[in-house]
Parts: sequence; structure tokens; C-alpha cells
Amino acid sequence: MIRVYTTALALTCTLSPLAPAGAAGDAQAGKAKAVICSACHGIDGNSTNPLWPKLAGQHEAYLAKQIRAFKSGERTDQTMAPMMLMVKEDDIDDIAAYYASQKPK
Amino acid sequence: MIRVYTTALALTCTLSPLAPAGAAGDAQAGKAKAVICSACHGIDGNSTNPLWPKLAGQHEAYLAKQIRAFKSGERTDQTMAPMMLMVKEDDIDDIAAYYASQKPK
Repeated sequence: MIRVYTTALALTCTLSPLAPAGAAGDAQAGKAKAVICSACHGIDGNSTNPLWPKLAGQHEAYLAKQIRAFKSGERTDQTMAPMMLMVKEDDIDDIAAYYASQKPK
Repeated sequence: MIRVYTTALALTCTLSPLAPAGAAGDAQAGKAKAVICSACHGIDGNSTNPLWPKLAGQHEAYLAKQIRAFKSGERTDQTMAPMMLMVKEDDIDDIAAYYASQKPK
């Protein structure tokens, strides 16, 4: 039995690097991290201000890419720039996963 | 009767400049103009590629602003840049209106 478990564990450790790059963030963890975003984008990402994009249901990879673009300055926006100072790199995938999991309205 | 019509016409011409800036585009007209966008973003704006954002149901004002940002170079993207050469300024509001009117999935 121990042999079975050990083999399974070894296989898992061997195969995990093959997981797709940019594997999904944690939507549950992202919910708390997205609180700072909610003031503009809405708690569930269904922003009601026509100039602040709806994020609910958007592709996770696209969301993560845009947050990183704002953070690096590759993409610029006067409202987003100061917000990015409060977003940690480690939180980005989770925030993106959270909004991607929300239902667009 | 002619006096009534003339007065109504005069009032319309006087008041029309007071229409909100960035008044809504024509979604129906936008459908044909958005054909070039559909290859990536999907016919109804529900893109299936995680790097190409879903546009369906997005705020019209935000969509129009981003198209203009890509067209001016204020926002840069290697895929979008050549596409912008095929988008006329006069079409932007209609394209934005079309995607804003689509149902997000």
C-alpha cells in the first residue's frame, strides 16, 4: 500500500511541472484580494460606471495580463496607476481568477 | 401647421448640440463594421481565446475609449495595431455599441 502511495506521489511531483504555464489562480483567495478593485469594478466585477470596465466573466489570462501591464507601466491609466501600488504580484493570478469566475450581467 | 413644424425643426436644430457628448453608436450598423474584429473576439464578442478579451456586454463608452486608445497608440498591442489601420474613426462608436449590446457568456 505504501508503495502505491509513494508511486502516486512520485508521479504527481514529476508531472506537475507539466501543468500549463500561468496555471489558474485561486478564485476563493482572490475574492478578498479584489476588495480594493471593487470600489470601481463592483464587488462581483459588474461595474456600473461606463468608463470602468466590467471584469465579471472575463478571461482570467487576459485579466492577469492587463493587471501586470498596468503594474509595469506598459499600459497606462491615471486611475489604475495608484491602485497598482497596492496590488502585489503574488495576488494578481488570484484576483484574475476571482473576477473570471464571476457571472457577467 | 407649417409654423408648428418650422418651430419644431428650429428647436431641434438648436437643442441638438446639447445631446450628451459620446452619444450612443448604432449597434445595428456596428454589426457589419465589427466583422474584422470577429476573427479574434468572436462574432458576438464572446471570444474563446483566453488572451483575446470578451467584448460582449462590455460598457460601450469603455470599448470606444479603448479602440481609440489603440488607434492613437496610447495603448499598444502587436495584434491590435495592424487591425486599427482598418478601423475608421467614424465606425468606432457603432462597433462599440454593437459589442455592448451582445449577451456575455
